[in-house]
Amino acid sequence: MAVYTQVSAEALAALLARYDAGTLVSAKGIAEGVENSNFLVETSNDRFILTLYEKRVDAADLPFFLALLDHLANKGLAVPRALRDRDGIQLQTVAGRPACLIEFLRGVSVSRPTPAQAGAAGRALGAMHAALVDFDGVRPNSLGQDGRRALAERCGAALDEIAAGLGTRVAEEIAWLDTNWPTGLAEAVIHADLFPDNVLMLGDEVTGLIDFYFACRDIRAWDLAVTHAAWCFDNEGTHFAADCGAALIAGYQESFGLTDEERAAFPALARGACLRFLLTRAWDWLNTPADAMVTRKDPLAFLRRLDFYASADPAMLVPVR
Amino acid sequence: MAVYTQVSAEALAALLARYDAGTLVSAKGIAEGVENSNFLVETSNDRFILTLYEKRVDAADLPFFLALLDHLANKGLAVPRALRDRDGIQLQTVAGRPACLIEFLRGVSVSRPTPAQAGAAGRALGAMHAALVDFDGVRPNSLGQDGRRALAERCGAALDEIAAGLGTRVAEEIAWLDTNWPTGLAEAVIHADLFPDNVLMLGDEVTGLIDFYFACRDIRAWDLAVTHAAWCFDNEGTHFAADCGAALIAGYQESFGLTDEERAAFPALARGACLRFLLTRAWDWLNTPADAMVTRKDPLAFLRRLDFYASADPAMLVPVR
Repeated sequence: MAVYTQVSAEALAALLARYDAGTLVSAKGIAEGVENSNFLVETSNDRFILTLYEKRVDAADLPFFLALLDHLANKGLAVPRALRDRDGIQLQTVAGRPACLIEFLRGVSVSRPTPAQAGAAGRALGAMHAALVDFDGVRPNSLGQDGRRALAERCGAALDEIAAGLGTRVAEEIAWLDTNWPTGLAEAVIHADLFPDNVLMLGDEVTGLIDFYFACRDIRAWDLAVTHAAWCFDNEGTHFAADCGAALIAGYQESFGLTDEERAAFPALARGACLRFLLTRAWDWLNTPADAMVTRKDPLAFLRRLDFYASADPAMLVPVR
Repeated sequence: MAVYTQVSAEALAALLARYDAGTLVSAKGIAEGVENSNFLVETSNDRFILTLYEKRVDAADLPFFLALLDHLANKGLAVPRALRDRDGIQLQTVAGRPACLIEFLRGVSVSRPTPAQAGAAGRALGAMHAALVDFDGVRPNSLGQDGRRALAERCGAALDEIAAGLGTRVAEEIAWLDTNWPTGLAEAVIHADLFPDNVLMLGDEVTGLIDFYFACRDIRAWDLAVTHAAWCFDNEGTHFAADCGAALIAGYQESFGLTDEERAAFPALARGACLRFLLTRAWDWLNTPADAMVTRKDPLAFLRRLDFYASADPAMLVPVR
């Protein structure tokens, strides 16, 4: 969430000269997204985001992300599509990094979603799923059940440094999910990280979906479970906002829909989602010095959500529409 | 150079409601300036910078900075003036920090100034000095000769970890400046940090002077010496760009001017400027882990500049106009 690579004004001007995008007026390094370097670039024509892909994004995945965003933008969704230069090229090299000049989207991320905003997020997720039914890109989910198990093993006994007994709790949850993970549900390319941070809004209207760098092919309803866990609790995970949950699910069912099998599997999918964020947060927690400039996010906030889903009634969480 | 404090969209909207500045359209944390948190805020009317002052800026100094920027803006200089809300208040509290909503200025910072750009910077510095002849704000220079001596003592023997013999070299330079520091030159409020980073330009035109958080009252010609050391060398300090130096001095003399005494004292002033940046960079170098996300700047790049000024001919550097 910082600028890792500096880009000189001269290099920026040279990049812009490849596009029909106007001339450079302003450029500010912005603190946004996963570990890339991002710049808000203003030209005589418009505003853009320049992203330099740093080590956390695998360059081999970039064609998948670019094709995904093109597919969504071509269907009219507000996503940050990479522009093509006069030669039709999206992926450039800037300061030695793979880089794209990307459409700027208006909107801000809300911190405490209202039910109306959660409903809009659910509708936007459903619209994205509808737009992706004919998208055949392939990228495995590195944080599915196998990935979660591997990450838990890498954290190892250190999990108990975060909270006494956490290692055992995680092992039990992995075993439960091994037995109860749903099979036979529809798979599709999903966002897989649709937190409020990654949804731009103005008032109650979604103006953009961003940060697709966890997008992958997996159980489609898992995306709704991730979004539910991300939007319907306070930060600490202690309070479930039932009104936001109901609005999110209703919004999704309005624009896309759920099968009976997906509804029944929802608590298990949500437990998998909570374990995914618990484990990535635990890994970051254990590998980030307490005095680092980066704010560490509490892994236990997702253990509390997991506990909620473990005792929740699917018919209440995901009613038949 | 990061965002230390997050501001929610809700808090931003509430802040904007105090101003006649339009409604929130976008907000991005930006990596800019000294250790403050900065956001580029777009509203339905315009763009602004929101600055939250973190610990490195003393809140007691803020009224001085705000008065300085008002003074310059009232004289038509392009500087980032803090807006007043409907009650006339510039200094707000956001997320528990002192904060200001600030005018946005177009332009980018050049990395490798051309002589034309150095000339424009010199003219802009002179215009700033002309605008400040009747500004009577008071803030001591914490990095004058006394401050430099104290900083050298705090670095202590560790200076030799940066380069063998650096401690002795610094002590000798402080002694030389004690004997040779000019007296009787005009004092005024100066910028004191006018690196290319702190000058916004479009092409060869200066569109803004920014980052006044080192501004203080000291020998006015020292500001030109700082600017000269900052603009007229390659990054490593090994090569003096004589054409940029001549253009900078000519630009300054065009818009303000130098006395014979200031010209004669210029090499000593420049040596003091080099020692100031050598020491602050040395302090940061010794106190920043090598693997930190922040790029450490090489202190020796200013020792090389110091060596240049120690053997330079003032009549060549600063010719009579």
